[in-house]
Amino acid sequence: MAATNPDEVVAAFVKHYYSTFDSNRSGIGQLYREYSMMTFEGQKFKGLQNIVNMFNSLPFPVCHHDIATVDCQPYGPPGGVLAFVTGTLNVPGQEHPLKFSEMFNLIPIQDTFYVLNAIVRSNKA
Amino acid sequence: MAATNPDEVVAAFVKHYYSTFDSNRSGIGQLYREYSMMTFEGQKFKGLQNIVNMFNSLPFPVCHHDIATVDCQPYGPPGGVLAFVTGTLNVPGQEHPLKFSEMFNLIPIQDTFYVLNAIVRSNKA
Repeated sequence: MAATNPDEVVAAFVKHYYSTFDSNRSGIGQLYREYSMMTFEGQKFKGLQNIVNMFNSLPFPVCHHDIATVDCQPYGPPGGVLAFVTGTLNVPGQEHPLKFSEMFNLIPIQDTFYVLNAIVRSNKA
Repeated sequence: MAATNPDEVVAAFVKHYYSTFDSNRSGIGQLYREYSMMTFEGQKFKGLQNIVNMFNSLPFPVCHHDIATVDCQPYGPPGGVLAFVTGTLNVPGQEHPLKFSEMFNLIPIQDTFYVLNAIVRSNKA
C-alpha cells in the first residue's frame, strides 16, 4: 500500500479486504484479531475463531464484491479510522447482485490495519 | 430512555435521532458536539455549525425516516457504541422511498449519547 493520502490508504485496505474475501476466504482471519467483533446480518460474532468460522460457513463458496463507495473519518488511536463501504455482492447463480453496506473500525498496525469492529447488512428489505 | 439493555438504549437513541431529523430538524444540532464529524453522501462536514448548516440546506424540507435495522457494538469510552442503521427515507413527491444506511459513533453523556461521528449513504447505485 504505497498510497499516503489517508482516504487512499483506507480505500486500498478495503479493496484488499474484499479481494481476500473473494479469492482467499480462509485468509481473511489475518485481517482480524482475537478481540475483534463482527456483526453479520444481525448475528454477532466475537473473537477471531468465531469470525473465521462464520466466514467459512457462509452458504456461497464463491462470490465477488464490487465496491461503490468508501467513506472514512479518523477515530481512536493515532491512524485509527472508521470506514463505511457500500457495494454489491455477486454470487454465481443469483440473478441480481445484492447491495450491501458495511462499517469497519480499523486499527493501524505497521503499514496496514486490522479490523477491530465490522458490521455488515445487505439491503434486501 | 428507560431501556437498560444496551441494544435497546441504542435503538431508542436512533429512533430519537431520526424523529428529530423528521419533525424538528433545527434541533438535531443538540445531538452533535463542536468536534463532531458527519459525512453526507461523500461530503465531509466537521464541527457543529457546519453540520447544522448542512442539515438546514438539504433540498427536502419535509421527510420521514423508517428504520429497518439497528446493529451495535461497544467501542471507545465506557458506554460508547458503534451503531449501524439501515432504513428508508421518504420524501413527499418522490415516487419511491430511498434506502439508506448510516453509521454512528455514539459517546455516552448522562443518560443518553451524542454523535461524534456519522457517515450516511443512500443506496442509489
